[in-house]
Amino acid sequence: MPIEPRQPTPTDQRPIGVFDSGVGGLTVARALMDLLPDERIVYFGDTARGPYGPRDLRQVREYTAQIVAWLAAQDAKLVVAACNTATAATLETNPLQFDVPVVGVIAAAVDTAVRSTRNGRVGVIGTQGTIMSGAYERAVAAAAPDVKLFSQACPRFVQLVEAGRTTDADVLVEVADQLAPLAAAGVDTLILGCTHYPLMTGVLSYVMGPDVLLVSSAEETARRVFGRLVDGGLLAHVASAEHRFVASGDPGVFAGLATRFLGPRLSVVDVEHPGKLAT
Amino acid sequence: MPIEPRQPTPTDQRPIGVFDSGVGGLTVARALMDLLPDERIVYFGDTARGPYGPRDLRQVREYTAQIVAWLAAQDAKLVVAACNTATAATLETNPLQFDVPVVGVIAAAVDTAVRSTRNGRVGVIGTQGTIMSGAYERAVAAAAPDVKLFSQACPRFVQLVEAGRTTDADVLVEVADQLAPLAAAGVDTLILGCTHYPLMTGVLSYVMGPDVLLVSSAEETARRVFGRLVDGGLLAHVASAEHRFVASGDPGVFAGLATRFLGPRLSVVDVEHPGKLAT
Repeated sequence: MPIEPRQPTPTDQRPIGVFDSGVGGLTVARALMDLLPDERIVYFGDTARGPYGPRDLRQVREYTAQIVAWLAAQDAKLVVAACNTATAATLETNPLQFDVPVVGVIAAAVDTAVRSTRNGRVGVIGTQGTIMSGAYERAVAAAAPDVKLFSQACPRFVQLVEAGRTTDADVLVEVADQLAPLAAAGVDTLILGCTHYPLMTGVLSYVMGPDVLLVSSAEETARRVFGRLVDGGLLAHVASAEHRFVASGDPGVFAGLATRFLGPRLSVVDVEHPGKLAT
Repeated sequence: MPIEPRQPTPTDQRPIGVFDSGVGGLTVARALMDLLPDERIVYFGDTARGPYGPRDLRQVREYTAQIVAWLAAQDAKLVVAACNTATAATLETNPLQFDVPVVGVIAAAVDTAVRSTRNGRVGVIGTQGTIMSGAYERAVAAAAPDVKLFSQACPRFVQLVEAGRTTDADVLVEVADQLAPLAAAGVDTLILGCTHYPLMTGVLSYVMGPDVLLVSSAEETARRVFGRLVDGGLLAHVASAEHRFVASGDPGVFAGLATRFLGPRLSVVDVEHPGKLAT
């Protein structure tokens, strides 16, 4: 049976806004592009002022308010704070009020993790700033008081990902060292509490072993946005949706890293024909 | 502390071969690119002869043998059969012998699913051919005899994904209809037994609800390959790894679909500067 043309339904063609202090939020943007191919995305990477982790709370709240206002001015129907620091600083304790709905990256991952754990022991890894903020502890305590959360700051992981070092022998040793306390604690579920970490899934999975489920805040957040758009009647259906990428810092640096995060685009000239298959 | 240059370690610079009867295996290729950014990939899409689902077993075995031989001739150090039909036909019951290690897409996903289920009830969705083959049932029975597997063929999902229809109201209704038996069976884990389905994660997750864990054969297979390369001393470290994409059919059709599967590549000219942020 052929696929019929889509029936006309009410749509909201405005873009989804996504922001981060840098390139990490592109893992969230890409998860959104995968799940919602008809949506346009406007991505803002605050590379001139990022990372936010070392900045004080007041400043992160100010930057976030600026960026959300800027994305709202780009007509965003919904904004994703694809940054753990910004989420912790503005959406959890003492939330800021925004003119547009804002979805963070903490709640969705925590929700999936506490539902998925079999032994009630969940780990979370993140930057020093995210772990020190206590945001995951508060979110887990609110969602599932019975679940025990073990937190581990992994200060060098972001740099390793941005340096493209996610597979070599030294990295394996370093990751195993960093995760040793979580392995010893017997966690069966591990939240990747930083948007860079989906690019470390291979080494994290290898080190933690097959019994530990990895929960990516990027993917979980994308699923949550999907639900918000469906439930709110906010889905767009834009043919060949084009995305915008805006960086406050050097566009060359941003583009160089972004290529790693978004993967290769194919053009027809890249596709070869095999000739005769050898048998 | 800065990230040091990588220490020289033994490497195997040969590419990883990946094949599918079409474009679906690109979800596996992309998961590999994410986890193993220093590896070159040679992707073969047998679009001239795919899909393999409706073909008889003997023919699928013959095509697979041809393609693996062709990938070995391209110097592949390891081949991923990123195709459920080819995996079921050549790697499970009565496996073919190959000159190069071949990893399929069924075993890794089954392994994760049976370890992750909390209630011992796992679902699998796939094409008619995959479900009819019984390959998932045999794999689950071998890995975890206590786990009960519920299988559901979803014959139109591949066409929906290729038509870019993964979000609209009709699709939500259709997916809910198709998955109703699995929801009624109370599965708490769902294997996406087709390489196209990661692009349906949004709707599948929405329909099944937050208590059902989705296991993507693409991601699980990429993690397995990561482990195989590490354990076998087969990792490559190719700076700015370039990939090859080869299609037996029309390269334009392949490239058009591939763009959806691989996501947008960014170039520096695409990145804007925000000007002054409105506050």
